[in-house]
Amino acid sequence: MQTTNRQLRLQSRPKGLLAPGDLQLVESPVPELKDGQALARLKYLSIDPTMRVWMAADTYLPAVPIGEVMRALGFAEIIESRHPDYKKDDRVTGLTGLQDYVLIDASAKQFFQKVPKIPFVSDTVFLGVLGMNGLTAFFGMEIAAPKKGETLVVSAAAGATGSIAGQIAKIHGCRVVGIAGTDDKCAWITKELGFDAAINYKHPDWKEKLAAATPDGIDIDFENIGGEIMQEVLSRMNLHGRVVVCGFISGYTKADPNMVSLGTVIVKRLHIQGFLILDYAARSMEAATQLGQWKMFGKLKDRETIVEGLEKAPDAINMLFTGGNTGKLIVKL
Amino acid sequence: MQTTNRQLRLQSRPKGLLAPGDLQLVESPVPELKDGQALARLKYLSIDPTMRVWMAADTYLPAVPIGEVMRALGFAEIIESRHPDYKKDDRVTGLTGLQDYVLIDASAKQFFQKVPKIPFVSDTVFLGVLGMNGLTAFFGMEIAAPKKGETLVVSAAAGATGSIAGQIAKIHGCRVVGIAGTDDKCAWITKELGFDAAINYKHPDWKEKLAAATPDGIDIDFENIGGEIMQEVLSRMNLHGRVVVCGFISGYTKADPNMVSLGTVIVKRLHIQGFLILDYAARSMEAATQLGQWKMFGKLKDRETIVEGLEKAPDAINMLFTGGNTGKLIVKL
Repeated sequence: MQTTNRQLRLQSRPKGLLAPGDLQLVESPVPELKDGQALARLKYLSIDPTMRVWMAADTYLPAVPIGEVMRALGFAEIIESRHPDYKKDDRVTGLTGLQDYVLIDASAKQFFQKVPKIPFVSDTVFLGVLGMNGLTAFFGMEIAAPKKGETLVVSAAAGATGSIAGQIAKIHGCRVVGIAGTDDKCAWITKELGFDAAINYKHPDWKEKLAAATPDGIDIDFENIGGEIMQEVLSRMNLHGRVVVCGFISGYTKADPNMVSLGTVIVKRLHIQGFLILDYAARSMEAATQLGQWKMFGKLKDRETIVEGLEKAPDAINMLFTGGNTGKLIVKL
Repeated sequence: MQTTNRQLRLQSRPKGLLAPGDLQLVESPVPELKDGQALARLKYLSIDPTMRVWMAADTYLPAVPIGEVMRALGFAEIIESRHPDYKKDDRVTGLTGLQDYVLIDASAKQFFQKVPKIPFVSDTVFLGVLGMNGLTAFFGMEIAAPKKGETLVVSAAAGATGSIAGQIAKIHGCRVVGIAGTDDKCAWITKELGFDAAINYKHPDWKEKLAAATPDGIDIDFENIGGEIMQEVLSRMNLHGRVVVCGFISGYTKADPNMVSLGTVIVKRLHIQGFLILDYAARSMEAATQLGQWKMFGKLKDRETIVEGLEKAPDAINMLFTGGNTGKLIVKL
């Protein structure tokens, strides 16, 4: 066992994309185990847009304090335990932080849960389809309540959450149109995931293409991006349409807030609902069971973008905002 | 009986406030009555912010065509009838338009309804508390579902709709804070209508005062204004707060759309719902009955700003956007 724990600590709050030094790699001793504690070694780190929010300000969780290990979800294996609930080789997911080793004790237990070893399924599924992204897509679709024949548009459609949300909408019989930022991503969501259409918003005529792909208007917007893309989707909403706001990724790296004109909200009698997955913690097993079943029967496909090495985590975070990943973005340790 | 019908016709679509000539006073003969028609003389015209929307563009109703009589709600008396449903001296409200006389025929009947003569109550109540404003406040509050002890903020609080909405929230036991643009309006809604607090948004420290007036945050925003005022209210919303969007008056006279940053929608898990009163037409009697009862028992107070003369209607419309009226704005003919 190593005696050094590498950690990425937040040294300064980024402006825009992360700059070198915003997260600083620091070596510290692996903590010594006391009674009631378990030590876990990180295998995978989940890289998510919300991390950029955690770096910036107190929102739904307090901002990560300067000098502390950067908050992140991860997958880890217990390597030593003096905790009654964990034994060596148990596998857990939770808020591990960006580091090699994490100490689990009673106070932190609520943030960790044990996960099983599933044959033929990658461990990383617990960070993606069966993790925060899958649960976010599942409960977001519960709020959206998609009905057969309705048209749903999802932005960041080739991202970890959007790609699952769109597939769930397909399971419910919707016409699903995804918005993404490369032709490769568009090809993936239509050819492999079965979306009915995909719009590359970097093409100059994307608005016309969105109109052509939604001939009956849009009943549901599963919104991940905000800004100009959301504005265009709002303009095509049908009467009494639903907008489920999962994220505003386009705004997370900008100093000016993510402005949208809401005039259509009255005219179209729109229902806009923001949500956070942490409100659904008590129902995570219900969602994971359904998601696991869909995955087992081939109804939910996923893809991963794997980056190797803890030191690459800052670059990986930036990839989320520059369109560098398709599907779930993981740092492998 | 006069033989001349004065009409205000839309000659050009205004930029910003109405300019002289956007509505042009035209004299035409009073239409001759055919079988199946009734002729009504206007007594009162209802002056509402939505008229500015009708002048500008197709939205929930088609824009008023250039050259046609400006659309408006009004109160009129039947002076002659060859229509089986109407007799002389019947009183009606409906989309009369800005003119002295309106012809009612079978095709237009759906837009008119007969109203009773109520002792000690002004006829104008059918344009205000028992008219579009009262119904809008009633159904807006039904969507908001205010609960005892919750804090509700209403903007344009001294307007015809906002003042009723706030009083309904008081009936439901809410702490009600109104936002208005003059100290007189603020005094009216607190001292006469019983609002718990009023904020004059033209005071430089209005944001601090809003914070002081909502020590437990805001559970419900009954939004009439949009823009910066809405933004500030959103920033003080409580978790799972509800925003009922009735209007964006601050944007109706502006070319640039009414932009709002929606970041709080996710963090606070807000529910935003736009609505239009025309969706509730089938339930208007239910609402009017309740509103009438509240009014009879002194639980709904109102005030009117009366402008005399059809030719003053364009100035009256502008008053809505410059803060000139308190309560219901009426043009008396």
